[in-house]
Amino acid sequence: MIPSTIRNFIEIFSRLPGIGPRAATRLAFYLTELPTHTKEELARAFTNLDSVDLCPTCKLIKDGAQASCAICKNPTRNKNVIALIEKPTDLLTIEKSGHHKGTYMILGETPQRGMVSELQKKRLEELKARIQNLPEKKATELIVAVGPNTLGDLLYEHIAREFGDYTQAITRLGRGIPTGGEIEFTDPETLRDALQRRL
Amino acid sequence: MIPSTIRNFIEIFSRLPGIGPRAATRLAFYLTELPTHTKEELARAFTNLDSVDLCPTCKLIKDGAQASCAICKNPTRNKNVIALIEKPTDLLTIEKSGHHKGTYMILGETPQRGMVSELQKKRLEELKARIQNLPEKKATELIVAVGPNTLGDLLYEHIAREFGDYTQAITRLGRGIPTGGEIEFTDPETLRDALQRRL
Repeated sequence: MIPSTIRNFIEIFSRLPGIGPRAATRLAFYLTELPTHTKEELARAFTNLDSVDLCPTCKLIKDGAQASCAICKNPTRNKNVIALIEKPTDLLTIEKSGHHKGTYMILGETPQRGMVSELQKKRLEELKARIQNLPEKKATELIVAVGPNTLGDLLYEHIAREFGDYTQAITRLGRGIPTGGEIEFTDPETLRDALQRRL
Repeated sequence: MIPSTIRNFIEIFSRLPGIGPRAATRLAFYLTELPTHTKEELARAFTNLDSVDLCPTCKLIKDGAQASCAICKNPTRNKNVIALIEKPTDLLTIEKSGHHKGTYMILGETPQRGMVSELQKKRLEELKARIQNLPEKKATELIVAVGPNTLGDLLYEHIAREFGDYTQAITRLGRGIPTGGEIEFTDPETLRDALQRRL
């Protein structure tokens, strides 16, 4: 009933994260009515993604023509304070806060079964090499900014075991009631953490 | 901080319906790690959409190489019973039910301010011409399958006024409690309609 180009579009786009068959269908109908040059612009946006690669230092996506990402290249960022994060989107959120003046290491997401992934192990080895290349051969602080949950706890403990000789301090993000949140509506686990980690 | 190709991707995709900046960002990071040929496949899916156009009869999207859409082309579909709908996705849902054996006319969505849009007026004029080309020069039934709300009521009344001479009957979709729904959780407006239109 629907032309195969549309079916094909819906099938391909349904597979992308965050886009289900419903959204893909709506998108397909919407797009068909757009002018040719808009569809070409969207198509180019995909192929252009091929010109990016990962920063060799922190694994953030960077312009392929640049040697490092904008953060690692920035001389005002503290190379001795490294935030360890799981996903690039976590980095964007932390950057938006403007409260981290150090650098980053993106580790990749922790598998749901709760083991440290092969990618994470590889990245942590790279982090050791990176720390040994610092003038002091030791970091001032590793901020383990991973999910405030059991998986994150496991990853933190793994890192704490491995990096004792590589840094003066290992910290985690504070845990408790979100600023502006209501105690009344706080779940028991958050409240437990907020009580245990009271300031 | 992010390469311009990624920023560009996020900006373009945030503008599409159903995809906000958050989903576009997540998508961009996801896509950059895919192989080149996958990105090219996605790009092609966009440019391929250019090969479709609208069925001259019912305005459903069709393969540009075909004269009509699959429904209008189908000799078993009743050309004298026409369902008037707002959006192509409504057509897909009705087709999935398998209970409409007639044809369609897609009118376009009713503007929120509640007037019949210029596009709808144009399509309704085309529908009159289409009906006059039927062997009987009159439709058997026009099923006004538009939203069960005030905007839909206005559109129905407009169509009922205009098409008195063009069809033997004008009907609307039944209104009431959804099959399988709970009376206990039915909102007052639906209950009012269900009581007024009791069978």
